[in-house]
Amino acid sequence: MLPAPLERLVEELQRLPSVGPKTAQRLAFYILSSPQKQAEALAQALIDVKTKLTSCEVCGNISDGPVCAICSDARRDRKLLCVVPTVKELLAIERTFVYKGLYHVLGGLISPLDGIGPDEIGLDSLKERLQTADVEELIIATNSTVAGEATVLYITKMLEGTDLRITRLATGLPVGGDIEYADENTLGRALSGRMAVTANSAF
Amino acid sequence: MLPAPLERLVEELQRLPSVGPKTAQRLAFYILSSPQKQAEALAQALIDVKTKLTSCEVCGNISDGPVCAICSDARRDRKLLCVVPTVKELLAIERTFVYKGLYHVLGGLISPLDGIGPDEIGLDSLKERLQTADVEELIIATNSTVAGEATVLYITKMLEGTDLRITRLATGLPVGGDIEYADENTLGRALSGRMAVTANSAF
Repeated sequence: MLPAPLERLVEELQRLPSVGPKTAQRLAFYILSSPQKQAEALAQALIDVKTKLTSCEVCGNISDGPVCAICSDARRDRKLLCVVPTVKELLAIERTFVYKGLYHVLGGLISPLDGIGPDEIGLDSLKERLQTADVEELIIATNSTVAGEATVLYITKMLEGTDLRITRLATGLPVGGDIEYADENTLGRALSGRMAVTANSAF
Repeated sequence: MLPAPLERLVEELQRLPSVGPKTAQRLAFYILSSPQKQAEALAQALIDVKTKLTSCEVCGNISDGPVCAICSDARRDRKLLCVVPTVKELLAIERTFVYKGLYHVLGGLISPLDGIGPDEIGLDSLKERLQTADVEELIIATNSTVAGEATVLYITKMLEGTDLRITRLATGLPVGGDIEYADENTLGRALSGRMAVTANSAF
């Protein structure tokens, strides 16, 4: 019913996550009626992302060169290393502007039920990196899911005996969170992980 | 924060309707992790839609040749002409498989408040077409909005005096619609436009 080129665009758009037939058709019509330059810019951006980007040789972050912008930034604290499951968590942490150390991007989380073990997510290369790098603290930033906890546990065991300080993200009430409405798990963890109040940190 | 090629893809995706920053980033990451062939196919489809498609010389439908598939289909009834505001309405009618005539695609609807008059939507070319084409019935398929009604009115006035039969889509209860919950306008129109029941049409 649609001319072949339009039909093909609708099909290709439908492959994107959470784009159904109706959305794909709406987007295709929008592109049909938009300036040719805009469609070309989007097409070029798609190609560039696949051809110009690689993984950073050091940390696994996405990068447009062999070493990513974070690893090659001299102002970064090389004694701090944050382990993240994927680049998405790295970007979320970067958005906070709080962290000034380096990263190590894994290939996901350990999940024995899905057949994903330590080697599949590249924990061997983390161990290698730690042997040569001058790291003092390793921050493990995973969600507190079963797979996240398993990964934290494995990394802690793997590094037992080294003098590396291993930490993880604090669990507790979100900023602005209400004690009355917090779920029992979060409130329980916020209690057991209570933090000392000092004159400087209280406000 | 993101490498330049990824940042640019996110920006380009954000130009699409109802794609915000979060969705654009999610889509960009999906493309980053999808096979190169898929990104290339989408890029090519985008280019093809802009370069290989034109408007049908006869009816204004989108087409991959000078005359569209509908206009060049010999099985179509050339005595029936359906006027639609845009290609979207044409496609909606085609999806019903009920209509076997030809189309005339306008460039929207008359809207004096927005400075859109009869010439802006190409009603002059409709008049021209009707002078040479052997059309017996003209079906005006517009939504029943102010602009839709204005367009119906204008076309009817424009063709006054010709022996063309002018019709429009029926207004009434939707199939499966509930009388109890129908709005007053729809129910009122369904009443005043009530249809004769014959032995054949009752079920």
